[in-house]
Amino acid sequence: MIEKLNLTMLTDFYEITMANGYFCSDIADNTAYFDMFFRKIPDDGGYAVMAGLEQVIEYLKGLRFTEEDIEYLRSKEIFNEDFLKYLAKFEFKCDVWAVPEGTPIFPGEPVITVRGPVMQAQFVETMILLLINHQSLIATKASRIVRAAGGRPVMEFGTRRAHSTAAAIYGARAAYIGGCAGTACAVADIEYGIPALGTMAHSWVQMYDDEYEAFRKYAEIYPTNCVLLVDTYDVLKSGVPAAIRVFKEMKPAKMGIRIDSGDIAYLTKKARKMLDDAGLQDCTIVVSNSLDEYIIREVIQEGACIDSFGVGERLITASSQPVFGGVYKLSALEKDGEMIPKIKVSENVEKITNPGFKSVYRLYDKDTDRALADVITLDSEDVPSGDDYEIFDPSAVWKRKRLSNFYAKNLRVPIFEGGKCVYESPSINEIRDYCAQQLDSMWNEIKRFDNPQTYYVDLSYNLWKLKNDMLAEARK
Amino acid sequence: MIEKLNLTMLTDFYEITMANGYFCSDIADNTAYFDMFFRKIPDDGGYAVMAGLEQVIEYLKGLRFTEEDIEYLRSKEIFNEDFLKYLAKFEFKCDVWAVPEGTPIFPGEPVITVRGPVMQAQFVETMILLLINHQSLIATKASRIVRAAGGRPVMEFGTRRAHSTAAAIYGARAAYIGGCAGTACAVADIEYGIPALGTMAHSWVQMYDDEYEAFRKYAEIYPTNCVLLVDTYDVLKSGVPAAIRVFKEMKPAKMGIRIDSGDIAYLTKKARKMLDDAGLQDCTIVVSNSLDEYIIREVIQEGACIDSFGVGERLITASSQPVFGGVYKLSALEKDGEMIPKIKVSENVEKITNPGFKSVYRLYDKDTDRALADVITLDSEDVPSGDDYEIFDPSAVWKRKRLSNFYAKNLRVPIFEGGKCVYESPSINEIRDYCAQQLDSMWNEIKRFDNPQTYYVDLSYNLWKLKNDMLAEARK
Repeated sequence: MIEKLNLTMLTDFYEITMANGYFCSDIADNTAYFDMFFRKIPDDGGYAVMAGLEQVIEYLKGLRFTEEDIEYLRSKEIFNEDFLKYLAKFEFKCDVWAVPEGTPIFPGEPVITVRGPVMQAQFVETMILLLINHQSLIATKASRIVRAAGGRPVMEFGTRRAHSTAAAIYGARAAYIGGCAGTACAVADIEYGIPALGTMAHSWVQMYDDEYEAFRKYAEIYPTNCVLLVDTYDVLKSGVPAAIRVFKEMKPAKMGIRIDSGDIAYLTKKARKMLDDAGLQDCTIVVSNSLDEYIIREVIQEGACIDSFGVGERLITASSQPVFGGVYKLSALEKDGEMIPKIKVSENVEKITNPGFKSVYRLYDKDTDRALADVITLDSEDVPSGDDYEIFDPSAVWKRKRLSNFYAKNLRVPIFEGGKCVYESPSINEIRDYCAQQLDSMWNEIKRFDNPQTYYVDLSYNLWKLKNDMLAEARK
Repeated sequence: MIEKLNLTMLTDFYEITMANGYFCSDIADNTAYFDMFFRKIPDDGGYAVMAGLEQVIEYLKGLRFTEEDIEYLRSKEIFNEDFLKYLAKFEFKCDVWAVPEGTPIFPGEPVITVRGPVMQAQFVETMILLLINHQSLIATKASRIVRAAGGRPVMEFGTRRAHSTAAAIYGARAAYIGGCAGTACAVADIEYGIPALGTMAHSWVQMYDDEYEAFRKYAEIYPTNCVLLVDTYDVLKSGVPAAIRVFKEMKPAKMGIRIDSGDIAYLTKKARKMLDDAGLQDCTIVVSNSLDEYIIREVIQEGACIDSFGVGERLITASSQPVFGGVYKLSALEKDGEMIPKIKVSENVEKITNPGFKSVYRLYDKDTDRALADVITLDSEDVPSGDDYEIFDPSAVWKRKRLSNFYAKNLRVPIFEGGKCVYESPSINEIRDYCAQQLDSMWNEIKRFDNPQTYYVDLSYNLWKLKNDMLAEARK
């Protein structure tokens, strides 16, 4: 199974044909700059959440080609023997900058930049995209769902519908970063300390002759935390009454009921009243039936009595839009000491890339500490400052904006320098807290589900001018 | 990363609380029967394709709880110490029957049945669902896409958009089973022998001063198979002309162009004409831009000139419906030597389960060898036969059907007997061939994309009567 796989070869085959091609051509010793960015926020949302960087770092640290890999490549009979020798002694030499996990990110921003020998900077494309795309997708979806729940805890319950083993584990990780309170997945607890919870399935109830017997047995064994699944037969006629009887007889320290089917708003209101009438105000109600941010928002508006949510398939697959479309594009080439910015031209304005080696800053209002805009600059520029700083819309060139009374924060940090990792990933709880805090610094208008305000991601004058000049040149 | 993870603990936490609960109650020594089945075919299709069994087998063979796992569980302070000792010496003892990979499967059929000690048969739920749900989802989607392509090869190109590392690898495996011709993912070639292919990205073209130089360099290095990406700047004005010039100068053994943007129908027709006019009838055209079965069908209808397809995100995530809703339900309990069938009642007719220990047969017409229907029987029944065999609709009880001139094939094979694996997975190419051959035995009406005919999955009289009697009893 997966645990014995060498992830170095988890790459699109063309990364290898290109690397061999660069090796065999006269640009092998040049330095390339690649940016990872994404173009569109899933679900037409107003923000995305960066996640997956810790796994990118582990991947880059572990890059090595085994003898088996080399033999595999040799068997294709298309690769240069000196290239294969180079791979056998491969040492990662690139510089990497990235936006820390948990940061709200926006289309067009280079969330990761890789600078290094063309072969190496090209080769790492597939895995960087795969890891960041996956976890950012799930963290973003989780953030939406957690917002909808309005402070009620949301548990990630999707393991059985995840797209493979790693999707379950790293999906649980990303969901926690996005604000989930925990997971059903035990190994995510062992590996990442994400609180794992879970009590019973319908099969537990079916194993016994009736619900009362099943619940009573459970409460005997788990007197400290007793959440009973009450919808195996009939929630209001048999499930809740049996649970009430057992709670009164057994008095567990913590008690709850879970409803996994039927009309959540109706059933939870009725169940709450039955529990309250029985003096069980402390008994919590958990629901878990094909939920997402829209259903959660609606049932809360309908007055459903819910203390926490379990969200499965629609979170772990981000089913409403299961693709985070991050791409990895060449932005510059250093050739014989000369820096040559590169641009990808397209009929589609949004597909035109931003050329050159760049930095990204988030500008905050000095009075409110709220984020005003992000600005992408050339790396050689000074940190944005001053009381009349002008930024340029990357696609609509007539749109400009002047900012004052702000301070700038470099959104990215150095991750690798010359192939050496210079960054230590924060703990998962630090990342989760950072995400919550960073989202607090964004205006609510950005975080709305429907028709959110578009957050500004503009260009500095110098970058805008470089892009404009290159486009004019390309049109000739 | 994932490779050092122990997958035994990749489980919903409640499987462990239930297992401990069974251990501590008087049903620990009883034998439980669990069925895995699914309720709805993704994309409103007419069939699904079974996949993921090989990984289920590896998982079951590898089940063991490490000291670290036991320590983790002990730290929760809710588990019985004797139960933890039992886990430390855990030996899988169940019997498992399953439908072989590559088989067309339908809602309601028990594609896997697990029989064994209640704790064990319960515990393996999460991973069986995860593995079968994921790969069956992708194999089913791939089968649809391959059908749309009408004999033209379809390559799986989705690694960078897969939901994690394992989703890329096992997704490539499932896509191949479903009929794809290969993958972009190198490690899927190393691990499973799925042909991996790929030549260049836009970055290759951008690295050089112009397309001609980039193409010429590539053709020098790869004279045997030279597929050039022609849409970095302008397909018809610069890309195809540069490719033609290089093909004529360099005469590679195999040559092709790839188009990754723009209007595929228009561009491929124009490009085909340009290539043909240049005498390059042998040059193939590959397209690869956000494709799925519907776009592929349409562009072929529009007369697009395409030799093969590369399909990425919409295949590897099954983006139109990224959840395969397999479930795992208790169907019977053996208690003190007595067999007690179990049923899950629900307001929703489709959610009512089929009770008892069952078998599944596919009935073929003796004259045409086409599949007529599947029938689920009690395991104790004889193989369906005779010239007047009656089968019963599982939900609409007035619907019956009489069959004659057929032969029956047991859809499932023994996989584990008393915890010992008695099945050897076929090679990936055998599975892929089997899938194609089995699909050939289904009527085309079943395989249509839109409004396919519903394939019969009916019950034997005995099973139907058991279910009916149990429902009548439950309603009392």
